[in-house]
Amino acid sequence: MPKLIDHDARRTQIAEALWRVVLRSGASGVSIRDVAAEAGISAGSLRHVFPTREALLEFSMLLIQERVGERVRAHTAVRDPLRRAEKILAEVLPYDDARRVEMHVNLALVTDAAGRPGLEEISLGAHDGLRALCRALLVDLRKHGLVHADRDVDDEAMHLHALIDGLAVHLLVGRTDPPAQVRRLVRGHLESLSAN
Amino acid sequence: MPKLIDHDARRTQIAEALWRVVLRSGASGVSIRDVAAEAGISAGSLRHVFPTREALLEFSMLLIQERVGERVRAHTAVRDPLRRAEKILAEVLPYDDARRVEMHVNLALVTDAAGRPGLEEISLGAHDGLRALCRALLVDLRKHGLVHADRDVDDEAMHLHALIDGLAVHLLVGRTDPPAQVRRLVRGHLESLSAN
Repeated sequence: MPKLIDHDARRTQIAEALWRVVLRSGASGVSIRDVAAEAGISAGSLRHVFPTREALLEFSMLLIQERVGERVRAHTAVRDPLRRAEKILAEVLPYDDARRVEMHVNLALVTDAAGRPGLEEISLGAHDGLRALCRALLVDLRKHGLVHADRDVDDEAMHLHALIDGLAVHLLVGRTDPPAQVRRLVRGHLESLSAN
Repeated sequence: MPKLIDHDARRTQIAEALWRVVLRSGASGVSIRDVAAEAGISAGSLRHVFPTREALLEFSMLLIQERVGERVRAHTAVRDPLRRAEKILAEVLPYDDARRVEMHVNLALVTDAAGRPGLEEISLGAHDGLRALCRALLVDLRKHGLVHADRDVDDEAMHLHALIDGLAVHLLVGRTDPPAQVRRLVRGHLESLSAN
């Protein structure tokens, strides 16, 4: 996959400042002025890099997607297919603080994207990307005899994708599901696929 | 369950105006002034009913939860246990426009709730309520011999809850899963519970 975005250090620095602002005050708290202050630069300098609030939000979402994608690719070398699927899915589940930050910011931006075509497109791209990833994991598991012949890969991808997104939200906003329990559920679900 | 909120017509009228503003411009677009204009009243009149933006958002979230609860209770008379579970779960899935509006507004408010204790508490209450509903459905299905003895009701409630929340988000933001397919997946999942 080609790099979607320019890894200019200044752009990354600003995007990370945006994340901190979103974490502190929600997506509704994001103004060019606040993000500039958080990044320690002037609003004018920020506007030079990101002429509009939308451009800044779009870059920030793409940066999160790209970082997740890089971490996912790092696991493709894991030998055991079930363990590989688990490791890859763990990259999109907010099990630790770094992933919680990503997920929180991403959710805030996705929710705030309604009516903004550029952000909506990026958000749909992430949705489609995660569906494709789930499907690829299932095709891989089937290749290793770990998905029962009666199961439909597209149906299972839809199920796995919804399960992962629901668990991600629950790790983030709920108080009921500790990471260890979510990991156990994901593993149990993947293992259950070999049965009818 | 006692009524959580006062069904004053004026409060409801203002909350519904808020929903329209959120649908149009996201939770970040919500200001007392905009909502007052949308409701056709003065900002002063709105502040008389809801002294703060938080009070308005909290009422709006509780109103959605109460409406969902009322619809859920209306299905408890359905005879067939699988059909009853399906009907009840359909009330929290945005299959049609009315439920899409609720879900969209709720998601926007939940995401915007970070750092606002009153809103966070209401959002956690909704999370816990849906988990309890999923668990109650599974206990009911087990009573009718429709959940295999090897399955743990709490684990299954966690799975069903995550699945439902993920599917709800996908119905709302994705472009891949038409309602008919989501209904089929939910039914298939409920039916699969009787197997090991």
